[in-house]
Amino acid sequence: MSKILIVYASDYGNTEKMAGAIAEGVKLVPDVEVSVKKAEDVSADDMTASDGIIFGSPVHMGSMDWRVKKLIDTVCSGLWMQDLAVGKVAGVFATGSGFGGTGGGAELTMLSMLNNIAELGMIIVPLPKNTHGYAKGGLQWGAYGRTGDENLNPVGVSDDALSVARLHGVHIARVTKALKDASVFKA
Amino acid sequence: MSKILIVYASDYGNTEKMAGAIAEGVKLVPDVEVSVKKAEDVSADDMTASDGIIFGSPVHMGSMDWRVKKLIDTVCSGLWMQDLAVGKVAGVFATGSGFGGTGGGAELTMLSMLNNIAELGMIIVPLPKNTHGYAKGGLQWGAYGRTGDENLNPVGVSDDALSVARLHGVHIARVTKALKDASVFKA
Amino acid sequence: MSKILIVYASDYGNTEKMAGAIAEGVKLVPDVEVSVKKAEDVSADDMTASDGIIFGSPVHMGSMDWRVKKLIDTVCSGLWMQDLAVGKVAGVFATGSGFGGTGGGAELTMLSMLNNIAELGMIIVPLPKNTHGYAKGGLQWGAYGRTGDENLNPVGVSDDALSVARLHGVHIARVTKALKDASVFKA
Amino acid sequence: MSKILIVYASDYGNTEKMAGAIAEGVKLVPDVEVSVKKAEDVSADDMTASDGIIFGSPVHMGSMDWRVKKLIDTVCSGLWMQDLAVGKVAGVFATGSGFGGTGGGAELTMLSMLNNIAELGMIIVPLPKNTHGYAKGGLQWGAYGRTGDENLNPVGVSDDALSVARLHGVHIARVTKALKDASVFKA
Repeated sequence: MSKILIVYASDYGNTEKMAGAIAEGVKLVPDVEVSVKKAEDVSADDMTASDGIIFGSPVHMGSMDWRVKKLIDTVCSGLWMQDLAVGKVAGVFATGSGFGGTGGGAELTMLSMLNNIAELGMIIVPLPKNTHGYAKGGLQWGAYGRTGDENLNPVGVSDDALSVARLHGVHIARVTKALKDASVFKA
Repeated sequence: MSKILIVYASDYGNTEKMAGAIAEGVKLVPDVEVSVKKAEDVSADDMTASDGIIFGSPVHMGSMDWRVKKLIDTVCSGLWMQDLAVGKVAGVFATGSGFGGTGGGAELTMLSMLNNIAELGMIIVPLPKNTHGYAKGGLQWGAYGRTGDENLNPVGVSDDALSVARLHGVHIARVTKALKDASVFKA
Repeated sequence: MSKILIVYASDYGNTEKMAGAIAEGVKLVPDVEVSVKKAEDVSADDMTASDGIIFGSPVHMGSMDWRVKKLIDTVCSGLWMQDLAVGKVAGVFATGSGFGGTGGGAELTMLSMLNNIAELGMIIVPLPKNTHGYAKGGLQWGAYGRTGDENLNPVGVSDDALSVARLHGVHIARVTKALKDASVFKA
Repeated sequence: MSKILIVYASDYGNTEKMAGAIAEGVKLVPDVEVSVKKAEDVSADDMTASDGIIFGSPVHMGSMDWRVKKLIDTVCSGLWMQDLAVGKVAGVFATGSGFGGTGGGAELTMLSMLNNIAELGMIIVPLPKNTHGYAKGGLQWGAYGRTGDENLNPVGVSDDALSVARLHGVHIARVTKALKDASVFKA
């Protein structure tokens, strides 16, 4: 059995919905368990017990929510020091409104989480553009729920984005399973 | 008189149109001259003779067009070595289609140009979100023309985006003028 | 009189020392005042009352300290919404140990702060490589104090790095002063 | 049999040496073949025939060498359009001198290649800090050969960095092999 942990922060429930959809996708893969936790409730043990970890955040001024960052500073940095997450599998997702023709800050928010993931020595699963529905809920780095229109009016997270999130969960679960006993970083 | 150089690469003419709109904006500011050149035609002298330089590119796989990069590797690196661009003013712009609710790669494309700009020691002018029309043609780092719909079908660069580009030119010209004799980095 | 605010978080006092050195540099510029505050003590009024804001952080897993992020999420986002920081001047600094021949995460930590700065519509002052002492305390994006050797052993922040920080303060103060009444983003 | 392609550009032979060391590492893994090519010699067929692709570049003004970028713009973008690289495995490496306590631009150079990799839908293998010799030749995103001292004097690529590069090759080869038949992105 492989275990996947989904960690997130959410302001208005949109990122939480995305987390739930990813969890549904993970469950579609046989022999993979999933748990979903708010960033402030995640312990080092939760992380070390997982084979894959998925980080999600709303876009806040072009980087992740401070609660996810607090988890990284206070919990992930300890795992990093002791090399306790090396070889696990990871992915990211985000929600945001942004202005206009681009969701300003979405890419950099995902990157701000990915840098932590790379430091931890985790394998990164992107979101291929041939993922069904990508045009409505994806970005190269992961599932992305656009929650505002081009004038910043809230529109919630669409079913299309949730559907992409589900597939992102499926992908990450499969990679986690395939690499579980591969010991790719063993000396 | 302050001089501004606009450097760009273009595939289908969209980035070229944006370059032209920025030049129009620059010309609206008294005592500022502008020249617009394709990346492959720009010399070191063109750059050292300018007080401000604006770099533009289509989004190609999440970073700048190789022709802009070639200019940076072969010309800008020489200016860097000799500190010949220190204290000039700079800005960036881009066009791209991207998929879905975000213009995938737009932010990172702008960043890939900005890193060169920072290495050169140039002051960076962003695009404030209260710029008129921002929702239709802007990103925090500069003017952005979305040239495809969410399914990648080409739609050209909109009048709104060109209008934002014009204002970006105005802003950069004003900063260039204000800093022309300020010698902010003098020892 | 121009006002500059230096905002930082610090774990072991290294980033605090850098903040102090930058403040010393700011004071060398006539007609510029400076205040230095911990991120958790900064209010929206502190920011709106300043003409320039300098953000500093230790490197934590490749991005800024969560306390700086909390300030950005809870205070800066409000300024962004109302366009209250547009046209101010900004810079960044960081400290970090990192491993080996590069201070892992330093560039991305600075970028994580710069994205917020760009969203706010602030003019960005980089650190030119001809700044005296750059080789010992600088990075293209700002002053950087390397606080550990290549094996992560703590070595404190060097006098060289503090000296570069001082000059970074001088530069930002000069740009702030030069742009104070320039109204570069006025409609 | 799994196939890995190493693609690089090199100015003075340092990045080429790193490419060679990575290839040696790949060969240590049973049932994995490797080929090493300069960016300008790589075809779309070379890429589609590979199960893993490793991109390497010298650091040039904070992003990849223009010859690597040209490959991405002219060849990778075609693979992206047709989803021909989805599910392959990837990694990056770089060499650079940089100034002072950090190899300026190294992280962003690696990122500039990684964004292309994510767009292509390839699984990303980072370099864990417990990799033997990491302090002398690694960065979170991949193997990194520091080729200049803090004053930019050339020192070549060290044996330590080559040794880390070798292990990076081992890691990527193992992930490639483990995922070869996993069809993780299959609809």
